[in-house]
Amino acid sequence: MSLFVQDVALDGESVGLRVEGGTIAALGPGVEAASGDEVLDGAGMALLPGLVNGHTHAAMTLFRGFGDDLPLMEWLEHRIWPVEAKLTADDVYWGTRLACVEMIRTGTVRFWDMYWHPAAVARAVEDAGLRATVALPLIDGLDEQRAATMRAEATTALDALEETGDQVGASLGPHAIYTVSEDSLRWVAEETAARGIPVQIHCSETEDEVQTCVAAHGARPAHYLDRLGVLTDRTVLAHGVWLDDDELALVGERGATVVTNPVSNLKLAVGGVFPYAKAREHGVAVGLGTDGAASNNSLDLFQDVKFLALTQKQEADDPAAMPATEAWAVVTGRRAPALGESGRLAVGEPADFLLVPTDLPELVPGELTANLVYAASGAVVDTTVVAGRVLMRGGVIAGADEVRAKAVESARRLGIT
Amino acid sequence: MSLFVQDVALDGESVGLRVEGGTIAALGPGVEAASGDEVLDGAGMALLPGLVNGHTHAAMTLFRGFGDDLPLMEWLEHRIWPVEAKLTADDVYWGTRLACVEMIRTGTVRFWDMYWHPAAVARAVEDAGLRATVALPLIDGLDEQRAATMRAEATTALDALEETGDQVGASLGPHAIYTVSEDSLRWVAEETAARGIPVQIHCSETEDEVQTCVAAHGARPAHYLDRLGVLTDRTVLAHGVWLDDDELALVGERGATVVTNPVSNLKLAVGGVFPYAKAREHGVAVGLGTDGAASNNSLDLFQDVKFLALTQKQEADDPAAMPATEAWAVVTGRRAPALGESGRLAVGEPADFLLVPTDLPELVPGELTANLVYAASGAVVDTTVVAGRVLMRGGVIAGADEVRAKAVESARRLGIT
Repeated sequence: MSLFVQDVALDGESVGLRVEGGTIAALGPGVEAASGDEVLDGAGMALLPGLVNGHTHAAMTLFRGFGDDLPLMEWLEHRIWPVEAKLTADDVYWGTRLACVEMIRTGTVRFWDMYWHPAAVARAVEDAGLRATVALPLIDGLDEQRAATMRAEATTALDALEETGDQVGASLGPHAIYTVSEDSLRWVAEETAARGIPVQIHCSETEDEVQTCVAAHGARPAHYLDRLGVLTDRTVLAHGVWLDDDELALVGERGATVVTNPVSNLKLAVGGVFPYAKAREHGVAVGLGTDGAASNNSLDLFQDVKFLALTQKQEADDPAAMPATEAWAVVTGRRAPALGESGRLAVGEPADFLLVPTDLPELVPGELTANLVYAASGAVVDTTVVAGRVLMRGGVIAGADEVRAKAVESARRLGIT
Repeated sequence: MSLFVQDVALDGESVGLRVEGGTIAALGPGVEAASGDEVLDGAGMALLPGLVNGHTHAAMTLFRGFGDDLPLMEWLEHRIWPVEAKLTADDVYWGTRLACVEMIRTGTVRFWDMYWHPAAVARAVEDAGLRATVALPLIDGLDEQRAATMRAEATTALDALEETGDQVGASLGPHAIYTVSEDSLRWVAEETAARGIPVQIHCSETEDEVQTCVAAHGARPAHYLDRLGVLTDRTVLAHGVWLDDDELALVGERGATVVTNPVSNLKLAVGGVFPYAKAREHGVAVGLGTDGAASNNSLDLFQDVKFLALTQKQEADDPAAMPATEAWAVVTGRRAPALGESGRLAVGEPADFLLVPTDLPELVPGELTANLVYAASGAVVDTTVVAGRVLMRGGVIAGADEVRAKAVESARRLGIT
């Protein structure tokens, strides 16, 4: 399978792009198609890296708009948990497929997921053609007996998840410090080290969570995780709103990644803003996530990158903070290599990219990067290519109608819509 | 000119909608087309009110992405003012037309504008088919001689502006307390009272501005404006971030409207969030604005309404604050009748409405209003109708290519792109 994009603009210059075996084989002015290439006309379009969603619960598209605007515990206890108890692998499959449609539509090529029935998540990702690191979620409720069973089951499930296709990576997803016991977290550290796979964990989303950790373990979250061996360069901390200066220094030293979710943080009113500038001073790798559709409620990173830049400006009392170029680097994964960056369009790199028409009313006049960050929505994306496969062309995604119908059917069965 | 929309969903029920002479003539289940009606198929779509942009400088689309991420004074002195000095009426016309394309594309049917060459703005609005209240901008730099000339010229210009077509209203736009003298503000109060037209003024955008007002006039902005007779039910205050409790009570008592611009406020890092809940407690009418494209940089109110709801939740430390239904009421003008609400779809009301397909991936499953506020971008809009004229159908706006080309030409001439 080979692909050629002709006459597309890269940094203002017309180039050709050849893809072979899912990899960029040639790129530049004067590069031409080989015989047998599928050819895409790139005239009037810009060639852009795909976006990386560093934290989501994809199948929660099923719960979009379900119980918004409620206090957190009421939302969890009366809305989310009762329906999650009824979820089948099939529901998760179609919910994840719906999320994939939305992500392909809005230019995301790779995401980090944590949700029930991870084998179904992995299958959905493969079928959709995206890339994802899928976490096996772990919650033991701090209960020793439940913890032992959970770990035994997790080993088998993880073996299976590691066998999934090329575009899916396996990882462990201990939910959070307050829902996973110390023993289980130590086990996570050992198991993921042995397998060389990532850990995804919610960390320091709310101030309350930090206080609970200090009370229970005599240390703030990053120090506690480090003590258990969980803080490594394979670790992805979701949120990190309340990480203090000492913790950021430690996270930077260990090479762990923080994924900030500004929209979810505002929607759930966690009360703080991730200290981006300070984190970067300490060398912390930072990615951007949407979080699940139940707390966002969109998976469109073009909208979230604007929230990222603007909340950082407001927090810094400085309109010059988080310029568009920096925000764009974050959303394309270039500030967090461990997430699997998509930002490098070069020979030998994975053929994950977008084509965006540059003459859309919201993209003129002015500089493209600033307009992508401040003026665009995901609707600007015309073409999404992952591993050399054209997943969307002209805004059309094959099979999207079936996916939507099946996901709505699942949501109805769960009593949501 | 008569129009019929068949089989469209209104609050979940299939209805017919007939338009005659720019007004809704019939609406409900069983309503049928008359012979000669232009017929739009509404199957699979929801009928929605159009959105109201309460504060913008439309022609500043010409400066989109020009000098982002700069400190305010550097941005004004080195970027905006030098190019504004070169602006012609023709530039303003095409910049406003580009803004109209973007607004039609994203479902705005009516906007409040304040910019140089207001006659060109008015002409652009008429030609685009939207509705707007256009302000004649006033700045006298607190200079008495300049003020006298300005007022004499303004009378003539205002006469002309009042003669513009049916869909444009005239108003006066004294820029702000710190740029317009006391005498001129008194004159604005008298002149607009005599003509019965609105006043648009920037007010309490930054804390600094409040301190300057207190130092110069011994009163906070709302009290100062009230003393001069400027605070009436014809007054629209843009921003209002720093209005205190006393001022909000006064604004409510006088029946003035505040237009909040959450995206612009974050982007320019004004440091505060408009006190929506408190304003409403005092009975203040509130609308939503994008501000100009130079400080947003988008005119897509679907994105801004999410910023509105989320910043209010964060500020209130309460995820239940500003629910989706309230945010939707604000963006459709139903919390600020003086802006010319678009929210009432009923017989006898202006035929301003949108058609939105309900099966888009980002709009399923869940409740439509929540999804419109939290999950949509303006790209969900398929059809925009103003005064019974179909300005967009299937995402296509007649003449948009010419508008874009002309606006880009103006921007180039000004040295922007």
